Order: sequence, then structure tokens, then C-alpha cells
Amino acid sequence: MSYYFDNAATTFPKPECVYSYMDTFYREQGGNSGRGQYKLAAAAGKMISETRSSLQILLQCNDKDVIFTPSATIALNMVIQGVMSDTIRTVYITPFEHNAVTRVLYHFAKYQQIVINQLTVTKNFTYDLDSIQAQFEKSKPDMVIISQASNVCGLIAPVLEIFNLAKKYDAVTITDMAQTAGLVPLDVGSELIDFAVFAGHKTLYGPFGIGGFVKKSDCSPRPILFGGTGVESANQNMPEKLPAKYEPGSQNSMAVAGLHAALVWFIQNQNDIRKKENTNHKHLIDLLRQYDFIHIVGPKDRSGCIGVVSCVFDDYSADNIGDVLDGFEIAVRTGLDCSPLAHTFLGTFPAGTVRFSVGYFTKDDDFAKLNEALKYIKENR
Amino acid sequence: MSYYFDNAATTFPKPECVYSYMDTFYREQGGNSGRGQYKLAAAAGKMISETRSSLQILLQCNDKDVIFTPSATIALNMVIQGVMSDTIRTVYITPFEHNAVTRVLYHFAKYQQIVINQLTVTKNFTYDLDSIQAQFEKSKPDMVIISQASNVCGLIAPVLEIFNLAKKYDAVTITDMAQTAGLVPLDVGSELIDFAVFAGHKTLYGPFGIGGFVKKSDCSPRPILFGGTGVESANQNMPEKLPAKYEPGSQNSMAVAGLHAALVWFIQNQNDIRKKENTNHKHLIDLLRQYDFIHIVGPKDRSGCIGVVSCVFDDYSADNIGDVLDGFEIAVRTGLDCSPLAHTFLGTFPAGTVRFSVGYFTKDDDFAKLNEALKYIKENR
Repeated sequence: MSYYFDNAATTFPKPECVYSYMDTFYREQGGNSGRGQYKLAAAAGKMISETRSSLQILLQCNDKDVIFTPSATIALNMVIQGVMSDTIRTVYITPFEHNAVTRVLYHFAKYQQIVINQLTVTKNFTYDLDSIQAQFEKSKPDMVIISQASNVCGLIAPVLEIFNLAKKYDAVTITDMAQTAGLVPLDVGSELIDFAVFAGHKTLYGPFGIGGFVKKSDCSPRPILFGGTGVESANQNMPEKLPAKYEPGSQNSMAVAGLHAALVWFIQNQNDIRKKENTNHKHLIDLLRQYDFIHIVGPKDRSGCIGVVSCVFDDYSADNIGDVLDGFEIAVRTGLDCSPLAHTFLGTFPAGTVRFSVGYFTKDDDFAKLNEALKYIKENR
Repeated sequence: MSYYFDNAATTFPKPECVYSYMDTFYREQGGNSGRGQYKLAAAAGKMISETRSSLQILLQCNDKDVIFTPSATIALNMVIQGVMSDTIRTVYITPFEHNAVTRVLYHFAKYQQIVINQLTVTKNFTYDLDSIQAQFEKSKPDMVIISQASNVCGLIAPVLEIFNLAKKYDAVTITDMAQTAGLVPLDVGSELIDFAVFAGHKTLYGPFGIGGFVKKSDCSPRPILFGGTGVESANQNMPEKLPAKYEPGSQNSMAVAGLHAALVWFIQNQNDIRKKENTNHKHLIDLLRQYDFIHIVGPKDRSGCIGVVSCVFDDYSADNIGDVLDGFEIAVRTGLDCSPLAHTFLGTFPAGTVRFSVGYFTKDDDFAKLNEALKYIKENR
């Protein structure tokens, strides 16, 4: 038994249909998609193709290409490394980027190939568009990367407004939707977005093993991973054909099957899912605010945030609190959340925070247990 | 219903324990390993660690590091690209390398950074060690890559014998065990092997989504993929700590769980598994040899081969035969098998072959159906 408040790491549990469809699909149709002309392979190929379409529907990007990768991390590597060139010198990021973005960039920055600037966010957690425009005027953006929401404090960025400014300079625009795909509406089909990266196992409620990116058809990053594609085998370059160009190796059809089921469920219930996550977010905030020794970091007004809430506790380190909560079978994330930049911005570096994150499946029981644990901490301070 | 002869693409079905353990694990313990200090994350972490140990046991390499990647293809990219440097000029490969090797190498060869040579294999399919030694003397090997067995004709390479010659020149040695891990015994612990790459979903009978490489502890390829590791988050380089250095992003604990169950099953039954695969290989060969319009390509003596058998059919293209077999619900692979080099060597490029590959779960029913289909083809020529 576990009371799970770590949905920003991976949503848990998944909808029943995800578990059952994955299991059934893999038992019955576990052939290798795209690697044979037989019915089993064709069935897997059809399911994978349907999954791309579902994603296009959910993310409103019918005219864009959907590329599957084993994870959002690999997708970000493929996009950033694949796009990087001599003409990219000035890269802007938010103060909240995850190591999946910043470590890729640092690989180039440490050899002075690029300069990394942070987009201006005010002390009251507003993306200051005027200041950002001034930043761009002063130092022309070649690439702008925006996590749609912080995995530390939940702050949602005005992706399209910033990309609108960036596109005046023809910057490459990349949004990392690992924490938001499906959950926070965004017109991914917009001309302003070159690349949008998603994780299957987080807000989309699919399994591990499947993520990817959506791209405009005229964006063609160089492949950074090479291998068999089941098409154009005699060609020793990666084929230009999509999605093969970016999908070397056997497709993880089991994980795609899980995402397939998740997307069917998500599209049918999207309003309800977003409403429930919102309600759970409010419930969490209300609960945490009852305790004056708990301090939520980040925006006071949570209306512009997703249900990812980082806190510091008076007198106790994040790890201490994590241990106590674990004693109550409560799962939270403690530390830096792979986002040292965000903690620096929030003033919680290097100690880190206790991060609570809700999902659609967070239940009254979870909140009751959390309340019990927080009461215990209060009484035993 | 399917009669499955495409086990070289992915083994199918899997042992029951793989399906059931994955499902149970993911339902009950689908937390994010290494990304929280709570019990759910710790349980996933422990299971992943046990899986590394099982692999060390099966592959006899207790003193080497096990790195997990989402696929063997990504593992090969990480190893080859990560090792590549200015000092690597001359690379030797077998005539049977898969595009997962050759396309990675071509990325360097096309800019004249490396020269790719093929190890000498005689017309009767013997690796000619004297000739190979002469090749090495003439042009010193900096890197030698050997697929332990061909995914086209099944020929097993004398990996250690060749690496023994290569190590006299301090070459980097890499063996691709995608078609052989567990199935064909190899002392992966040997000092002669720098890197051994494995696929979870093939001969190890695990699921898609998990592969990796085993490396000697003093081999440290540069990471080529960057991202969050849950450790040393403030460090913008990938941590030097293993396995974090090469495992950015959330671990696919569901796939690892599947591999965990597969390895328990494999280690308990390894003699039986190898014997059964061998019997099925013989059964397949005997069946195919009954038809004089079918010509097996590659070694006549199949004792040095795994159960992967490529054929050409009189009067019909590979695709034609694939279609007919599909009508009988028989799954085979047709074409170039992502290995154009091998087909060139075998004289079957560019038309390709019909490839039959057996596994532990190939049944009498499968052979009976195949026989029925081949009879039909014979009678309707």
C-alpha cells in the first residue's frame, strides 16, 4: 500500500485499460512491428499508427509529425543535439529547465559553442514579456526552450507568447511538455512551435518506455542515433522517410500499446481528467496551508500552476521529512528534482524541497493519510 | 493465431512469468526507481539491481559493469559513438554486421574519419584467423566489432579468438550479442572483451524496452545522451558514477521487471533452453531440406550456427513467399533483415531472402503448418 504524491515523477497508478491492454496486446500480438510483412507485424504497425493519430488529436497538431522515442529525455537529446549547428549561438531557456534540457545544452556550452541565457521571470513569478523582448533585442535568440510547466513549483509558462517573440528572430522553438502534455491545453499545431516533446508515462498516463516529439514538417534535425529501420536497408544513412529517420531499432510496441490505451481513455475523459487534477491540486494546497511550519515555494497564486507543489519545512531537512512520510507509506520526492536551476531561482538550492504532486488518481484516502502524517510532524516537532 | 518463425526479430511468445511479473510489478510497484527515497522507488531500485546481477551471472561477467539502455541499438550507439575519437582510424567488422552497427560507423566513415574493413571469412564460412592476423599486421586495428552470430545466416563468430588477435594492437573490442546473449555461451567476463551489447527482447526472452551493454570497468566512453539521473543533480555534466553516467531519464522499470523474470527463468532452465533451440534449429533445417526448390544460404554445416536460416526459393521472390506464408498465418521475415552487408556477402543482395528463425517456444504445430505451406507452394509452382 502506498499513498502516492509523486505523480510528477511518473503517474501512478495508470488507468486499468493501460495495464490490461498492454498485457493482452503483448501476449497476443508481440510480433515485431515494421520488421516483417506478416499479420502480427502489420497489426502492431497499425496500432502504432493509430497511437500517433490519437496524439495528434489530443495535442491538436494533425499537420505535424509524431516521432516516438523511448523517453522524453532521448527526445530532447534528439531535438537539441540534432538541431545544434554553427549558426546556433544564443540559447534562451526558462529558469525552470530540467537536467534533461540543461545537461544537453551544457555539453555544448562548456566548449563555448553556445551561450545560455535565462528568460526573465519576475520575483512574483510572471514571465515578463517586455523584458524578454528586450533580452531578444539585445542578444538575438537562435534557440528558445521552454518547459511548459516547472517540475518543481508547477508554474506554467506562456509558451506561445514567448515563441511569438522568438520567431521574429527565426529562433528554433522547443517546448518540453513532459509535465503537461494533455493536462495543460496548448495549440501544439501552432506555426510558432517547431518541436514539442512529450513523455508517455507522466501526464498522458501511459507506461514507461515511450515518449517522443512532435515536429513541424520542415524541421529536420540531423539524426543522432543510427540503426536498423526496416526500410531502405541498403541505405547506410538513416532514411529520410519519417518516422524511420528518427526511430532506429525495434519499436517498443508494448509501451506504444500502453500509450494507445491511455490516449483513448484520455481523449474520452479529458475534461474530467483536467478538472480532477485541478481539484486535487486545490485540495493539496489547502491541506499544506493548514500547517504554518510548511512553506510552499513558488507562486502564491496557484491558478497558473499545475499540481506540483514544492515545500520547505521549518526545522527539518527535505530528506528528514521524506523519511517520516515514508514511515506513513507516503511517497514524495525530496531534493533537487533533477532541476538545480529551478531551485536556484526559488532560493532552495542546494538543500532542495519536499515535492508533492497529484494526479487524476489521487484519492481522499491519500489526502487523509497525508494530513495524518503532517499532524504527526506538527505534534512531534 | 500465428505460426511464428521470426524469433530473430523478437522472441515470441515470452515465458508466462515475463508477462505476469511485468503486469503485477507495474500495477503494484510502478513508482519511479531512483527518483524518490520512498519504499515504492526503493523496491523498483532493488529489482533493477537484482536484474543487473542476474545478467552478470548468466553472462559470466561478475566483475564488469552492466548498463541498461532502452534497446541494443541505443547501446551500440552509446558504445561506438562514445568510444570514437581521433585515435580511432581503422575499424574492423564482420561481413555480417547489422545496420545498428554499420549505420553508426558510416556516420563517421562518410567524413573519412574512419576506414571500415571486413574481417576475412572464407567462402566456406570460416573466420580465417591467419588471414585476419595478416590484415591486422597490414593495417593496425583500432576498433573491432563482431556480431556473435549473423542475424541473416546464423553463423557464429569465434569472438574471443579474433579479439585475442585484436588486443595485441590494443584495439577496442565490441561484441554485439543481440542474437546470442544467453543462447550461445561466451565468457563475457574475459579481459579480451571491452564491450558486449545485449537485447532484452530477443534470446533473453525479456520484453521490448530494455537492452544494454556490459563493459570493463576501465572502459569509459563519453556519454552521448544527457539528462536527469536522480544523483548529483547540481552537476551539469553527467555524473561519473555508474550506472547513472549512461542511464539518463526515468528507468523503464516495467521492462526491467520483464527482463528480471526472464533471467530467473533463463538461469534455471538454461541447458534446456539451449537444447530446445538446437533441436528446433535441426527440425527446421530438416524440413527445409526436404524441398529441392528451397536453397538455404550460408554454411552447409549448420553446427556452427544459431537457428536463424535464410533461404531463396526457385521462381519466387522473397516477398512472394512471405505473402503466401502469411496466408497460412506463418510469420517470417523477408528482404534484407537490416543487414545489407551480410546479403552482399551471401550473394543475395539486393533481392534478399526468406528468413526463418526458431526459438525455445517453436512447437510441432508450427513445423506442421510450415510443412503444409511448403507443400502447397511445391504443388502450385
